[in-house]
Amino acid sequence: MSDPTFELARDLIACHSVTPEDGGCMEIIGARLKPLGFTLEYINRNGVTNLWARRGTTAPLFVFAGHTDVVPTGPLDKWTSPPFAPEIRDGMLYGRGTADMKSSLAASVTAVEAFLAAHPDYPCSLGFLLTSDEEGDATDGTVAVVDVLKARGESIDFCIIGEPTSVDTLGDMIKNGRRGSLSGVLTVKGIQCHIAYPEKGRNPIHEAAPALAELAATEWDRGNEYYQPTTWQISNIHGGTGATNVVPGSVEVKFNFRFSTASTPEGLQTRLCSILDKHKLDYDIKWTLGARPFLTGRGPLADAASAAIREVCGIDTELSTTGGTSDGRFIADICKQMLEIGPVNATSHKIDECIAVDSFPQLSAIYHRILEQLLVVSH
Amino acid sequence: MSDPTFELARDLIACHSVTPEDGGCMEIIGARLKPLGFTLEYINRNGVTNLWARRGTTAPLFVFAGHTDVVPTGPLDKWTSPPFAPEIRDGMLYGRGTADMKSSLAASVTAVEAFLAAHPDYPCSLGFLLTSDEEGDATDGTVAVVDVLKARGESIDFCIIGEPTSVDTLGDMIKNGRRGSLSGVLTVKGIQCHIAYPEKGRNPIHEAAPALAELAATEWDRGNEYYQPTTWQISNIHGGTGATNVVPGSVEVKFNFRFSTASTPEGLQTRLCSILDKHKLDYDIKWTLGARPFLTGRGPLADAASAAIREVCGIDTELSTTGGTSDGRFIADICKQMLEIGPVNATSHKIDECIAVDSFPQLSAIYHRILEQLLVVSH
Repeated sequence: MSDPTFELARDLIACHSVTPEDGGCMEIIGARLKPLGFTLEYINRNGVTNLWARRGTTAPLFVFAGHTDVVPTGPLDKWTSPPFAPEIRDGMLYGRGTADMKSSLAASVTAVEAFLAAHPDYPCSLGFLLTSDEEGDATDGTVAVVDVLKARGESIDFCIIGEPTSVDTLGDMIKNGRRGSLSGVLTVKGIQCHIAYPEKGRNPIHEAAPALAELAATEWDRGNEYYQPTTWQISNIHGGTGATNVVPGSVEVKFNFRFSTASTPEGLQTRLCSILDKHKLDYDIKWTLGARPFLTGRGPLADAASAAIREVCGIDTELSTTGGTSDGRFIADICKQMLEIGPVNATSHKIDECIAVDSFPQLSAIYHRILEQLLVVSH
Repeated sequence: MSDPTFELARDLIACHSVTPEDGGCMEIIGARLKPLGFTLEYINRNGVTNLWARRGTTAPLFVFAGHTDVVPTGPLDKWTSPPFAPEIRDGMLYGRGTADMKSSLAASVTAVEAFLAAHPDYPCSLGFLLTSDEEGDATDGTVAVVDVLKARGESIDFCIIGEPTSVDTLGDMIKNGRRGSLSGVLTVKGIQCHIAYPEKGRNPIHEAAPALAELAATEWDRGNEYYQPTTWQISNIHGGTGATNVVPGSVEVKFNFRFSTASTPEGLQTRLCSILDKHKLDYDIKWTLGARPFLTGRGPLADAASAAIREVCGIDTELSTTGGTSDGRFIADICKQMLEIGPVNATSHKIDECIAVDSFPQLSAIYHRILEQLLVVSH
């Protein structure tokens, strides 16, 4: 197959870039952007390489964001073809990172190339925010670039992240927000004793059970137009000395809220603690706010994306806020409108990761039309 | 101090008999019993040494039962004097096994010696049932001897076990029964899923919580004249993959009933399962019946013990069924009346285990008077 997006994607997939390695991807992309007039700025933190490339100084600023790192391959002998040797079979391109998200990176580069070929001197700014620390800790990746941009007062008007958002066919779903994530480690304290003399102690598992039952049954909110209701789930519970004749002195419960913009982290914390207090528990909690929720409602960017997908793919896309967290949680801090638009997600992180070869020109065309709409037609 | 019980106890405490070792104790005791006309029979099973010594063939049969093994010493440098080098300080004899239960063994031997000196040819039978596998697994100790006796149709009319039953002062409490112990390992099954998509799975911790709350709040029985109510306690709960973004597929709960003669194991099992069923849990349980409860109500043995303690110690003893399990659970199977009578329990299993030196002649005198009352006076 001969298509510029396919060819660039193939080169990127061939890079061994298991997180947090970049594997040479940024160099390949940088070499394409430089001739287009982009200034390349490497913003590295704690050994992680990030690339901030910008062209132009006039508003609006339109940014493609993404990551060059991929998740580990898993057992190599389970792959039909080697994960870093992209191969076409039956209309699909196989390789680690095809879906998540090297094909999107390639499509954003070729879309910008096509746009600038058509409008070489148009007054607007374009940017690329690339990291190789998204699939891992994500502590020194996109957030590091955002920290620098924020410090010097740079903000983003429109942003597209190429995460694989489609479900069955390219364009059937895009993400216009992500829920927030708030985690806690709850320790409920009792008094250890011999199991034959429970009256000499206090069983923290017994005391915690009715409170956990109430928390599990609580309606935290009803969601809103864009969000399903907030969920609360226990991931781990551990109590006990190992001995079967001892009532333990404490039990530890790890839990997680996935919360919508219908709730605030502070509100959820207060309500959870009030339930624990009502049950008169002796406890402490260590909280971690993993991500605040963000949302891009209907407006110029969502409208442009819907129209572009309808034109290129012939379908109506669905705006969704489901799923895990993404680097959008960091970018939201300095960006007015942001969407995630990418290929079919079904094989992400799996053995024999792949996407349809049709997706390459189509995804590039979708991105290109969005640029046209926002930067030229409606400007 | 010169007292035959003290001297024998001191010799026994000097034996290194950390469970399941006997350390030579049975040889010392056997050497005292043989001249009194006892036939010594060693009943060994799976490497554990047990001694069944009997004198006489006429009813009633009065047996002293006990164990020669002791629990481990713990850190030797925490002991004020070496645990196997008995030493008197301030009216107390220190050493591992002073309370639990070598002093009682010595007292039972000297009591029988004194009784037989007074009634050399009295028509009755006396026995000693000794094991060195009580503090450990207890799988080849007393239960092995009971198996043999049962197989040949030997039953016991009266039995005293020298477990340390006193609380503050010798004789203030004796045990006329022990609760049963019924354990279970409950596995509640759910469906594992990513914590961001709880609707794709079923959280077994959430489903178990209300059932555990109800079990913890359940009144299983109200006890009876001799027993406090049955208790149910969770000792261990474990659920979770370790990952904080995964809802686990199952949670395991280990629990234990300590139950009175007011309940049966079968009844408790049925009621527990009906609560789990009511909460529509998908679960399985592995049950272990550790001990059936046993009880010796007021009658000849309890009356004789109360009178003997009143005469020797000047106090009214309290009959109690509290505490953990003992080897009485095995002997109850072939014994009509059984009591546990021994020294102050406070330092059992602890560093610097000790009992008051006054206890040696007093405990021997208590045992002797019980023999007189049951075998001579009321016979």
